[in-house]
Amino acid sequence: MNSLVKWTLLVLVLVSVLVNMILIGMISSRVPACSTQRVHPLKGKHDERSRVFADLTSEEYLQVQQYMVQQKDLGIRTRQLTKPSDNFLFLIELSMPRKADVLAYLDGLGPEPVREATVVVFYGSKGHIKEYVVGPLPKPTYHKDVTKMKYKTELPITARTVTVGEYHFLTKFLKDQLSKMGDIIKESFGNKTLNPFEQMPRGIQSGDRKTWVSLFRNFSGMYIHPVGLEMLINHESLNASYWTVEKLLYNGQYFDTVEELKQKYAAGSVKRIVYKEATEYDSLIPKNKPLQLSPMQFYAEGKRFSVSGNHVLYLDWSFAFGLSTLTGMRVFDVRFKGERIVYELSVQEAMSVYGSVTPGMILTKFLDSSIGIGRFAHELVRGIDCPHQATYVTMYRYIDVPKPVRFKNSICIFEHNFGQPLRRHFSDFFSNGYGGMVNSALVLRTITAIGNYDYMWDFIFYQSGSVEAKVHATGYISSSYLVDGSLKHGHQVAEKVLGNIHTHFINFKVDLDVLGVKNVFQTKDMEFVNVTVPWLPGRYAMVPQLVEKQLKSEQEAALRHDAKTPRYLHIASNKTNAWGHQRSYRLQVLSFTGDHLPESQTEERAMSWARYKVAITKHKDLEQTSSSLYNQNNMWKAAVDFSSYIQDNESIENEDLVAWVTTGFLHIPHAEDIPNTVTVGNGGGVLLRPHNYFDQDPSIHSADGVYIKSGAEESCENNRMACVAKESCSPLLEPFTYNGFEGVIKFHD
Amino acid sequence: MNSLVKWTLLVLVLVSVLVNMILIGMISSRVPACSTQRVHPLKGKHDERSRVFADLTSEEYLQVQQYMVQQKDLGIRTRQLTKPSDNFLFLIELSMPRKADVLAYLDGLGPEPVREATVVVFYGSKGHIKEYVVGPLPKPTYHKDVTKMKYKTELPITARTVTVGEYHFLTKFLKDQLSKMGDIIKESFGNKTLNPFEQMPRGIQSGDRKTWVSLFRNFSGMYIHPVGLEMLINHESLNASYWTVEKLLYNGQYFDTVEELKQKYAAGSVKRIVYKEATEYDSLIPKNKPLQLSPMQFYAEGKRFSVSGNHVLYLDWSFAFGLSTLTGMRVFDVRFKGERIVYELSVQEAMSVYGSVTPGMILTKFLDSSIGIGRFAHELVRGIDCPHQATYVTMYRYIDVPKPVRFKNSICIFEHNFGQPLRRHFSDFFSNGYGGMVNSALVLRTITAIGNYDYMWDFIFYQSGSVEAKVHATGYISSSYLVDGSLKHGHQVAEKVLGNIHTHFINFKVDLDVLGVKNVFQTKDMEFVNVTVPWLPGRYAMVPQLVEKQLKSEQEAALRHDAKTPRYLHIASNKTNAWGHQRSYRLQVLSFTGDHLPESQTEERAMSWARYKVAITKHKDLEQTSSSLYNQNNMWKAAVDFSSYIQDNESIENEDLVAWVTTGFLHIPHAEDIPNTVTVGNGGGVLLRPHNYFDQDPSIHSADGVYIKSGAEESCENNRMACVAKESCSPLLEPFTYNGFEGVIKFHD
Repeated sequence: MNSLVKWTLLVLVLVSVLVNMILIGMISSRVPACSTQRVHPLKGKHDERSRVFADLTSEEYLQVQQYMVQQKDLGIRTRQLTKPSDNFLFLIELSMPRKADVLAYLDGLGPEPVREATVVVFYGSKGHIKEYVVGPLPKPTYHKDVTKMKYKTELPITARTVTVGEYHFLTKFLKDQLSKMGDIIKESFGNKTLNPFEQMPRGIQSGDRKTWVSLFRNFSGMYIHPVGLEMLINHESLNASYWTVEKLLYNGQYFDTVEELKQKYAAGSVKRIVYKEATEYDSLIPKNKPLQLSPMQFYAEGKRFSVSGNHVLYLDWSFAFGLSTLTGMRVFDVRFKGERIVYELSVQEAMSVYGSVTPGMILTKFLDSSIGIGRFAHELVRGIDCPHQATYVTMYRYIDVPKPVRFKNSICIFEHNFGQPLRRHFSDFFSNGYGGMVNSALVLRTITAIGNYDYMWDFIFYQSGSVEAKVHATGYISSSYLVDGSLKHGHQVAEKVLGNIHTHFINFKVDLDVLGVKNVFQTKDMEFVNVTVPWLPGRYAMVPQLVEKQLKSEQEAALRHDAKTPRYLHIASNKTNAWGHQRSYRLQVLSFTGDHLPESQTEERAMSWARYKVAITKHKDLEQTSSSLYNQNNMWKAAVDFSSYIQDNESIENEDLVAWVTTGFLHIPHAEDIPNTVTVGNGGGVLLRPHNYFDQDPSIHSADGVYIKSGAEESCENNRMACVAKESCSPLLEPFTYNGFEGVIKFHD
Repeated sequence: MNSLVKWTLLVLVLVSVLVNMILIGMISSRVPACSTQRVHPLKGKHDERSRVFADLTSEEYLQVQQYMVQQKDLGIRTRQLTKPSDNFLFLIELSMPRKADVLAYLDGLGPEPVREATVVVFYGSKGHIKEYVVGPLPKPTYHKDVTKMKYKTELPITARTVTVGEYHFLTKFLKDQLSKMGDIIKESFGNKTLNPFEQMPRGIQSGDRKTWVSLFRNFSGMYIHPVGLEMLINHESLNASYWTVEKLLYNGQYFDTVEELKQKYAAGSVKRIVYKEATEYDSLIPKNKPLQLSPMQFYAEGKRFSVSGNHVLYLDWSFAFGLSTLTGMRVFDVRFKGERIVYELSVQEAMSVYGSVTPGMILTKFLDSSIGIGRFAHELVRGIDCPHQATYVTMYRYIDVPKPVRFKNSICIFEHNFGQPLRRHFSDFFSNGYGGMVNSALVLRTITAIGNYDYMWDFIFYQSGSVEAKVHATGYISSSYLVDGSLKHGHQVAEKVLGNIHTHFINFKVDLDVLGVKNVFQTKDMEFVNVTVPWLPGRYAMVPQLVEKQLKSEQEAALRHDAKTPRYLHIASNKTNAWGHQRSYRLQVLSFTGDHLPESQTEERAMSWARYKVAITKHKDLEQTSSSLYNQNNMWKAAVDFSSYIQDNESIENEDLVAWVTTGFLHIPHAEDIPNTVTVGNGGGVLLRPHNYFDQDPSIHSADGVYIKSGAEESCENNRMACVAKESCSPLLEPFTYNGFEGVIKFHD
């Protein structure tokens, strides 16, 4: 080896080492420091006691199911295709323990409440429904029939939800009927498969189980593809062989029997529908190929929240969450800086009333909790339903199934930067300075696809101490085949398709506990008062004054939609803040509701919560929900009539108060609802905000606060943003600069 | 060199090269592919013609200023400290060309309109104000006095905004007065500097210029630090040496002169304020050190929008934008897929009426456009006021200055992923599929810090064809020193501090052009109608029907806040969509306004736009704004009284229509307003949404659409999200998985 080779090798080694060093340097400086690990410890600790609110586990469902099946005297079956005439174990859910017991436990003053399940059995063999409380978990030893205690009445079997078993027979029945209409099916509907969509309630009086079924094309978005055939099926009998067709509507014309329709059709006395291939305007398959990505959020320094079981910690917040199979998303024991603010915030009911000239929608009043709201929470899609990096939680449910079912990732939890300041001030008149803080908040979300509609449910926890409950509607509208007179009830949205006018009413239960359970309900508003101008005797001026009231009774505090309502509504404690004002949380309702069904209608009692924008009641364990599983199919004798909660007109002064808040919107469908209704503008909610609860805005203590001093604009001292481009996982962030104090005019000197 | 050394060197070289290769591999695989470059071309092209709406450039301001100064006969000065008795060039702004001329130009049917400026001169020497139109730019040759044409009246000099020049004298005057109160200042206020905050209007009748000035501690957030001293300064005279103190308020007690206060104070007949060091509870300096970052958004594949001059392209949208020094943010010629939808969407006025027992706030009615809304748009702070990666635009203004001033980064434009689906449907009843699309939209924002308050203005452009105008309030509340009776007008929010009750009313001009300028104003709503149940003769049911109306005249279409208003308001064309419905845009107003000032008050005429939630007028070039620069200081003879626009009650059928939309909220201050009001819950806006404008939801054509098929859940075919973890700039994104079709129950078979 000569000297040249030696030197070449040496140079190569040196160059290589140098390149290594540069590359290592590049990696350490350019590879993002992004981490799924939190870089700072959590503020609080997870609380095992939150398990008291936890939905049942897969094992618990099985324990309860096995226990119930072992009660041979009850004769319960669990097969999914159990016949209506048999006894079917329909539902197992957590039985919520009494509030007083829970509070004692949470506050270290009592034992852990016994864990129990609610079990619903449809006794086809006996013609009624029973609700049991089964416990104690994990090894049940008792079942108590609580039906009478909860509902003050028997529950007739006709009040039951239609089960998969009953649908099995209904589908078969429908197929048989359609198969009789050979020519019509061929000429009018091109021999294609038709899918049914049902009207509810199923009839016009208690005991009825007569369902108008409309037929739709077998497309993925069938709901906007009506074909013009509707049938009234009487399925009251628990024996499917007795079921009958009571009426038919074909192209706007009524017939008593399939036979009558066939005869008249053959005789040419029917205005025929001529089959025409339909375009799949319902299709959600993108018409354009996925291109450049929209912006995405990322956690530059890991997640600032933590989920352990059903307990969430996020900065100053902590809460327990759950997903009731029937009523949907709920949180409990919501605390800010350790202080309980909300005992329960939960979805109660989603209701819609439709208008139509055709029978399939003319009497339709959907009460979704009667089929189950939480039941339809399926996996949330990463990047669309929730941000890509959200935390996804898997839930289990037992409703109308032979064994518990896992619903993977059916709740998501994420912190969202709303892209706007939570607060900020730029000061220039006497001094130059900027103080602000971005609005980054925690979102708990589920989306429930209940037939045609998808409701998005959000509970949001802000750093200013506010909690918001929001709902948005998307998915498919319900529609009818267009006939004469249809346009009185909506707009045409596709060929021969009417988008039916309808209301959306959503009810939330808001059980605030402001510094304990003893609270009052206050209202605040303004009025102009004519006062003397103090320094100009004889001169008057209209000046705004504060008007405060404390409402005394449930009836006084049942605030109807159409009445003038005070602008500020508060759940308040008699305890005062540093400035002597009663500490309170304000309920700010965002709503675009239409008219509520007139009380003259029997069905109204099954949805009487919707009369009120806000109604305040005294908390009772037996007034746990504003609706029930049985309200839909026995609307005329509703198992739960919310208005009865306020009929006794109890005092609401220094009591444990619950606010029942109704929001929603009037939906007059339009072409842009095809294929799907968009969330923008189609929603409502309620914001719970501190009002003299604290002595100042708690967000002032947030470490997200930023302050910029004139003369040190780009200092990182009080401004993480000024360093972020250098320091952290930053996909090509531009450097921070600030010149806001240039060009500022001194008004005073 | 021996063999060992040789081999060692060779091995070293090989190892080094290997390490290099590994490192290079790591870099290319792990360094994000993030780019500020667009990866796909824009859909449209920038339109140079949008310059017709562009605010004046720095050069243009100078050209106009020089031209005006050269008109020796006008005797105009431009020094910032010009005395009130001299003639001062106060304002130069773009003079908006006539709509007809602009439309002709934009649509290729006419020449480019002449570019002109509006110039406002305060003629102290003559006792009046003149408005000129100066043109043509860039080399002005004419100035036309348009005062009479625009305002139908002379503008008295007392109607002028207080200038920096006048403030200079006011500050001096105030200092002199305070210096006379030696002992009081020492004993009551600790000899500290006091800052003034003014009440408006300045008096009780036309010609008045008598301003109540309240004194505050010299803290950065002085607005919440009143000290208990208020003074009524008469500064009507253009000669500051004639100014007088007409009244004083000290600790709730009135005095006619400084002397009287001093004498009575010395004599002990005044209830004294005893100085006490105040904590700086106004401070926005973070109490906790910046910690872990909140989530941030990034453009994984570059920005999907483009800003060229004052023109923006974003997916299917294009528009021109500007920032009027007086009225604030505005957009013009807003098009979706090339079709003009909005001619003008602009902020018009921000008004507040306060209540108080003390004079500093008792008559206060702020009209912000009279001092200038856009004037106070300072640099937006990266990462707080707007997302870090927003595009920031620098603007120039000329108001109350000796030369044009640059305001760097005072507008921001960004696409924001709202973290929720714009639409989605999960289908499980008859088929399994998921279609959805994230809600990612473009935001145009400015924030104006007008004294104590900061208003955040957002115009949002959604992929569903909707445009939203939103306003949120933050910053400091106005406050008064707490005296007897104060609590009738608000809540105590700090030691001896009252947060005064007040209203916020915001007016937007919404000049929609739905398929041309000839439009009608429609309303839609629901009503329950008692109808026979068709298949059950003799049975009746209340069924929702659609109620549509076309309003004919301006007065009919002036919808007051307290009147029952139809729920849907539409600007419609007579042209129809594919389904025969009039194509329209709906105005959905979100508002929490308090009561408007009673019309019995003379001042009401200066803010009469606030009577109406929505008012529709026929477009006129001379009805360009709902308020004016002169409304604040001459409220009693308002230069623009909006109600006069509708007094002639013109037809609004098939005319060019303008909607004037009012939003806002009642603000009852509470402890959490200290130090700053938060944006959450404190805002309002209007959503402009297509309603039968299209034949279907235009977002169905977005390339952001996602579809997941059962059986191919993780395919990237129609789902960019499924690939994003692998493909793009992704700070540790978790892989996409989907199991939503597991556990789905077939209801029908």
